[in-house]
Amino acid sequence: MKYQILAKDGRAKRAVVETVHGTIQTPVFMNVGTVGAIKGAVSTDDLRGIGTQVELSNTYHLHVRTGDKLIKELGGLHKFMNWDRPILTDSGGFQVFSLAGLRKIKEEGVYFNSHIDGHKIFMGPEESMQIQSNLGSTIAMAFDECAPHPCTREYMENSVARTVRWLERCKAEMARLNSLPDTVNPHQLLFGINQGGTFEDIRIAHADTISAMDCDGYAIGGLAVGESHEEMYRILDVTVPHLPENKPTYLMGVGTPANILESVDRGVDFFDCVYPTRNGRHGHVYTNHGKLNLFNEQFAKDMRPIEEGCQCPACRSYSRAYIRHLLKAKEMLGMRLCVLHNLYFYNTMMTEIREAIENHSYAEYKARKLEGVTGNYKDKQN
Amino acid sequence: MKYQILAKDGRAKRAVVETVHGTIQTPVFMNVGTVGAIKGAVSTDDLRGIGTQVELSNTYHLHVRTGDKLIKELGGLHKFMNWDRPILTDSGGFQVFSLAGLRKIKEEGVYFNSHIDGHKIFMGPEESMQIQSNLGSTIAMAFDECAPHPCTREYMENSVARTVRWLERCKAEMARLNSLPDTVNPHQLLFGINQGGTFEDIRIAHADTISAMDCDGYAIGGLAVGESHEEMYRILDVTVPHLPENKPTYLMGVGTPANILESVDRGVDFFDCVYPTRNGRHGHVYTNHGKLNLFNEQFAKDMRPIEEGCQCPACRSYSRAYIRHLLKAKEMLGMRLCVLHNLYFYNTMMTEIREAIENHSYAEYKARKLEGVTGNYKDKQN
Ligand SMILES: [Zn+2]
Ligand SMILES: [Zn+2]
Repeated sequence: MKYQILAKDGRAKRAVVETVHGTIQTPVFMNVGTVGAIKGAVSTDDLRGIGTQVELSNTYHLHVRTGDKLIKELGGLHKFMNWDRPILTDSGGFQVFSLAGLRKIKEEGVYFNSHIDGHKIFMGPEESMQIQSNLGSTIAMAFDECAPHPCTREYMENSVARTVRWLERCKAEMARLNSLPDTVNPHQLLFGINQGGTFEDIRIAHADTISAMDCDGYAIGGLAVGESHEEMYRILDVTVPHLPENKPTYLMGVGTPANILESVDRGVDFFDCVYPTRNGRHGHVYTNHGKLNLFNEQFAKDMRPIEEGCQCPACRSYSRAYIRHLLKAKEMLGMRLCVLHNLYFYNTMMTEIREAIENHSYAEYKARKLEGVTGNYKDKQN
Repeated sequence: MKYQILAKDGRAKRAVVETVHGTIQTPVFMNVGTVGAIKGAVSTDDLRGIGTQVELSNTYHLHVRTGDKLIKELGGLHKFMNWDRPILTDSGGFQVFSLAGLRKIKEEGVYFNSHIDGHKIFMGPEESMQIQSNLGSTIAMAFDECAPHPCTREYMENSVARTVRWLERCKAEMARLNSLPDTVNPHQLLFGINQGGTFEDIRIAHADTISAMDCDGYAIGGLAVGESHEEMYRILDVTVPHLPENKPTYLMGVGTPANILESVDRGVDFFDCVYPTRNGRHGHVYTNHGKLNLFNEQFAKDMRPIEEGCQCPACRSYSRAYIRHLLKAKEMLGMRLCVLHNLYFYNTMMTEIREAIENHSYAEYKARKLEGVTGNYKDKQN
């Protein structure tokens, strides 16, 4: 992997990441496809049409459902989904901690029950690396504990200490897997994950420790789990400077357009979030005049596209009135069009962000975009 | 409207229909979009990509849901759906008789309750024409009674006599509506509908009567409602010769690929059916080696497309194994891909049918295709 910073504007980084599956232009928003497909009937062919750079797949879901061994046998996730650009897989940890029923955390890993059929599963650092190696993703994430929020200082100290030990084991296991003759992607990259909740000193100490462990990139996990946006920005302010500037910085599970704009300004260059897909499925669409709820009566006769000038497959062909009709009639097409627009909106915002950093006009761009995305549509119309 | 027969092969007709929304090449399979969208997240942009000539919309659904008055206000169904090719609307009669709760048939029309909220609705010939005029479809269907199957001879005689009187009223009302200054489509066409169940003499007498009434085309209704395929073919054998050869002949709600192949051979040139969409949503896909159920375990590792050589959006990019994975994971994308394949399969079959008639090789083509579509996949593989 090669990470090269092309421009900086304040703390905002504009970089390129060369991978075995092609180049990633950052800042980048990864599009989340939980079980090897973007929810909302969106295919990898569609992703190519809306400017998606990186697809994110969920290790836990693919493990308990179709099975990573089967996917390896079929040539890996890229071949299975017909996607030749980068894929990032999460470690499965977050899903284990948020979805699984009874679970027990031990030094060796986590014992839990499948959320589908309840059968007992064990996942530790080695198992997570093995599953992600079977999937053959471009970037694998280290197996960590996303500690509950809030938790005691003592709990957090024990948790991040174990996460450091787990990262050592992840690194060793990935090195072993990448050297095997039948590995799907022998160039698989590993990102470590910083934890520590909202304890600044724990975050910093942990960031320093893992930075010394020479991962291919570093994520900040355990944010956007219930703390305020201000707390999140504060943690970024203190933590990002303790992660290597010459490697990708990934803020996991974030967030709203405003969150992304603020986090880019704090040095983050990788993002992922289910908001654009989940909101799209509920008829909530992003525009530069605020978010619209297309179920609202006010759009019943509105023959304009979701956003004037938007070049997404929804806006190029269909009106707010028609999409509202589809949503009300529970036609899947309504959800699909909203999801396509939202992903296109996010992907396009990232393009704008990259251009603004290149032009050293990020502060100005951010102020203008923030005003737009947080605007109240009704007010703007009047 | 201009209907021109380009070729005949036995009783099979190969024709073109010129409409205000473009030319229809027949035999044609119309793709059913119940509430102004093809179920399975398929858009009109998608239809353009899979060779759809005519979209069929359901008058009853659009009336009770979004409302034909709103659609007229927005410029009609073509503009609403962004589809500039022909649209055929049914009369609403079939849905009233099959979906609505309590209903009462009177000389003036039908009183019934909405299947959505139970509110009382009246629909007679004039109302059906008004709704279809508001939608502005290319072809409107006459309001008829689709009599229950089976029913007594007496019931059927009364029913078709009333359907003739209703057709007179439909014609008069459509002429009036087409002459109004604010009509969405002043060139709207009207197809009459032949009824009579499986009573051959009633079918023939009714066909003779409506043929003299100079409609733009004629449909055969009340088939595929529970009678055997052989009965249906027998009724076509006796009825089609009593409908004008120099006008379109439309067999409503039919059917399987085999039904279509047999009916083309009996002079039918318009078809519609929910099978390809409904089957697709359940993972049942058509091939030239029989129908496959993609939920079956045998496809778990099958990296071939649904059908080798198929140029549909599903087969060009995705494998049976991946689509099966999507279906099992309840991802909408699985349904969408199956529906796209099935519609493409039907549309492509119609192209093959037209070529075979032009080449005067329809009998040979039909025999070969019938063997393919009715084949048992498993047998063919071994
Ligand atoms: Zn758009
Ligand atoms: Zn296909």
